[in-house]
Amino acid sequence: MQDLDYFFNPKSVAVIGASKHPHKIGHVILWNFLRSYKGRIYPINPSVDEIMGLKTYKTILDVPGKVDLAVIAIPAKFVPPVLEECGKKGVKSVIIVSGGFSEIGRSDLEGEVKRIGKKYKMRIIGPNCIGVFDAFSQVDTLFMPRYRLERPRNGRISFVSQSGAVGSAILDWAAAKGFGFSKFISYGNAVDVDEVDLLRYLEKDKTTRVIGMYIEGTRRGRELYETLRRITKKKPVIAIKGGRTESGSRAASSHTGALAGSAKVWEAMLKQSGVIVAGDIRQMFNYARVLAEQPLPKGRRVGVITNGGGFGVIASDAIEKHGLELANLEKKTIAKIRKHVPEYAVVKNPVDLVGDADAQRYEVALDALMDDPNVDIILVLILFQTAGVQSEIIDVVANKSDLKKKPIIAFSAGGEFTTLHMRMLEKVGVPVFDSLEEAADAIEKMYLYSLYVGNAE
Amino acid sequence: MQDLDYFFNPKSVAVIGASKHPHKIGHVILWNFLRSYKGRIYPINPSVDEIMGLKTYKTILDVPGKVDLAVIAIPAKFVPPVLEECGKKGVKSVIIVSGGFSEIGRSDLEGEVKRIGKKYKMRIIGPNCIGVFDAFSQVDTLFMPRYRLERPRNGRISFVSQSGAVGSAILDWAAAKGFGFSKFISYGNAVDVDEVDLLRYLEKDKTTRVIGMYIEGTRRGRELYETLRRITKKKPVIAIKGGRTESGSRAASSHTGALAGSAKVWEAMLKQSGVIVAGDIRQMFNYARVLAEQPLPKGRRVGVITNGGGFGVIASDAIEKHGLELANLEKKTIAKIRKHVPEYAVVKNPVDLVGDADAQRYEVALDALMDDPNVDIILVLILFQTAGVQSEIIDVVANKSDLKKKPIIAFSAGGEFTTLHMRMLEKVGVPVFDSLEEAADAIEKMYLYSLYVGNAE
Repeated sequence: MQDLDYFFNPKSVAVIGASKHPHKIGHVILWNFLRSYKGRIYPINPSVDEIMGLKTYKTILDVPGKVDLAVIAIPAKFVPPVLEECGKKGVKSVIIVSGGFSEIGRSDLEGEVKRIGKKYKMRIIGPNCIGVFDAFSQVDTLFMPRYRLERPRNGRISFVSQSGAVGSAILDWAAAKGFGFSKFISYGNAVDVDEVDLLRYLEKDKTTRVIGMYIEGTRRGRELYETLRRITKKKPVIAIKGGRTESGSRAASSHTGALAGSAKVWEAMLKQSGVIVAGDIRQMFNYARVLAEQPLPKGRRVGVITNGGGFGVIASDAIEKHGLELANLEKKTIAKIRKHVPEYAVVKNPVDLVGDADAQRYEVALDALMDDPNVDIILVLILFQTAGVQSEIIDVVANKSDLKKKPIIAFSAGGEFTTLHMRMLEKVGVPVFDSLEEAADAIEKMYLYSLYVGNAE
Repeated sequence: MQDLDYFFNPKSVAVIGASKHPHKIGHVILWNFLRSYKGRIYPINPSVDEIMGLKTYKTILDVPGKVDLAVIAIPAKFVPPVLEECGKKGVKSVIIVSGGFSEIGRSDLEGEVKRIGKKYKMRIIGPNCIGVFDAFSQVDTLFMPRYRLERPRNGRISFVSQSGAVGSAILDWAAAKGFGFSKFISYGNAVDVDEVDLLRYLEKDKTTRVIGMYIEGTRRGRELYETLRRITKKKPVIAIKGGRTESGSRAASSHTGALAGSAKVWEAMLKQSGVIVAGDIRQMFNYARVLAEQPLPKGRRVGVITNGGGFGVIASDAIEKHGLELANLEKKTIAKIRKHVPEYAVVKNPVDLVGDADAQRYEVALDALMDDPNVDIILVLILFQTAGVQSEIIDVVANKSDLKKKPIIAFSAGGEFTTLHMRMLEKVGVPVFDSLEEAADAIEKMYLYSLYVGNAE
């Protein structure tokens, strides 16, 4: 068992500051554990005997069994004595969600926390953070109501965030769009566990295929660089770097107080360590979901299939703009498609199956492009406004994607009917975009990463 | 009455090819008119007496009253004789949605159409198009089922499209997002009415504040340029140019057959004529809705309000990246806000109201920035994951936006709860983005347009 593993796979959890009052953070956290977590749960509260049907203990020292993880949600000034008790109890890992430490000038209290943690060799995440969400074990210290912050399904993206707000928005967004998550960690003031520790843990984590991060600054530049450079050879890391400009850097110093450092130094560091930089959440997910769900391409030649000619044109522009190429289809490919489509279909690249295309026509084109050695990546455009395309198109595209022979990326654009089908595609592992610019951008990043790890030429 | 006005405000409409069969285009079109259009409707079909309760005429010549607009949805080969009848009847304008003309090599049929139109001085839109949608008069020739292609609410954006598919997706998208439309025209093969005619009409149209267009090529380059240059001084024009690259240009020539022309010539032409170029639908709407709903800024200095510090940092980066400036708040402004927020709030620019901010705190900050002469544009970030922000925030932001003193642009990111509130904001006229990159990009375009028309320095 790795050092940090008690944060994600504890057999037992104590919630210190558990409360009967629905508006208290300690209530929300206990409720979340009760709802889905399978291990033992010990509420700690000196003044009640029972919360939500669970026997409640006055202090953690009164708990009969072992405690792997303690979650602390009480006012800052009470944290040090309670942490001391955790140490005595032999707790392995502690998440302190409480604020009120160095971020408001109470470095003295934070020093205490650090000292006690070291004394007992406990690992600590926080303070001043929203903590951990693990979509597999259902460890969940996020104290926001679920109707406001939905939890995503389990999947292959993990995310490390220096900002609680950015992290919350990311989880909530992912849940609504159908993107899958493995682990999420907001590490706050990082009195012990910091981004370097977390990256090293995720490096070896089997359920993590892609790592995302939001970072403003670091206290361990050199180690961060070396860790990232090593990880990126195994898994893609996508970073949103807060403070990439002078203005952003100033804003960051009032936010996390972290020395954001020179924008240029960061840029060079991230580039040299093979990190993919995203400008915001949307871009981060655009890159993460193609890398998490699809195989890496062997080259940059894109085959495009569409049922709307105008979008084929826009796709061609976007492909060239992003340093990719429209594949030169083999004669055999063209002949195969030609046989099964009406005369007015345009069989070159983009393959325009025209407005009355149905799922069968798409299947023929997908198969042909899948077999064409000149095609490295398939971009399939599906417009649902005309009546030809039925919902069965989802199965057709998903089946080809499941072969994992070549990456398949989809595009669609429209209203509710379209959105419904886009979510279906996303859930079966086909990344789907509503902007061809963004699709081409994501394909470019995928291709560059494939080059970086020596998978493409 | 302007020449083209019969397309958008006809007092009577004949649907030629009206049908009882739900799958026929002529059925969908008649159904659409019956649903919302207030003028007289005459179904034309030689073999039935009544459709959907309406008396049906064998030919348009049998219609008792005048016909302002005829919509033709019959096979191509029958179009010329029917068009001749329209001419004899004195019809002012005709929309031919039928395909089967020059796009499949039948230039002979298309020539016939052109000759007959000229002979009777009828204006013709099409053939091979989806025609017209007017959100005010409810002229609606779109033959896609409404569950697949939703119709948007009425508003201030009009759109001219050389591609039917791009046009359909745009309307459907706008409907789902709550964006408002005035007029939409897909002009197909442009046997008579082309993009230049339509732009000239929209130039004078009072309900059109912003014009969007999708264009691949033109037969009237010089006139298009001069028309655009004149219009852009009065209203913003946003164009998606299909065929901006070599690859796109080749794809366009197989699509509309239009000579897409040199990408460089187009780029120069659009730039010199003051057109804002968008890469895809998403960008087009990003630019269109800020320009349609908000006043133009007097300068480039942005004041940012947030309840999540990390997003304030990302916003600062995006603002600088897009050539804008973080405003230097006046001392008075800072004092005003300081008085009403807790000590741990960060009162500089970005104004970080922190995680427990409520609508009242936002109101104080919005008022202060509204009064600060150093602020030209307000970017307000609202994260709904924490429980502090209630739905009343919509009223607070909408009320400030209604003053039309300075542009207000909003940002939010998250799941269903967030999306619901974003749609509310959009519907009351506050453009809201889920990407700070895109928000800053749209503000940049807004500022540049304001410079262009001499409203900003």
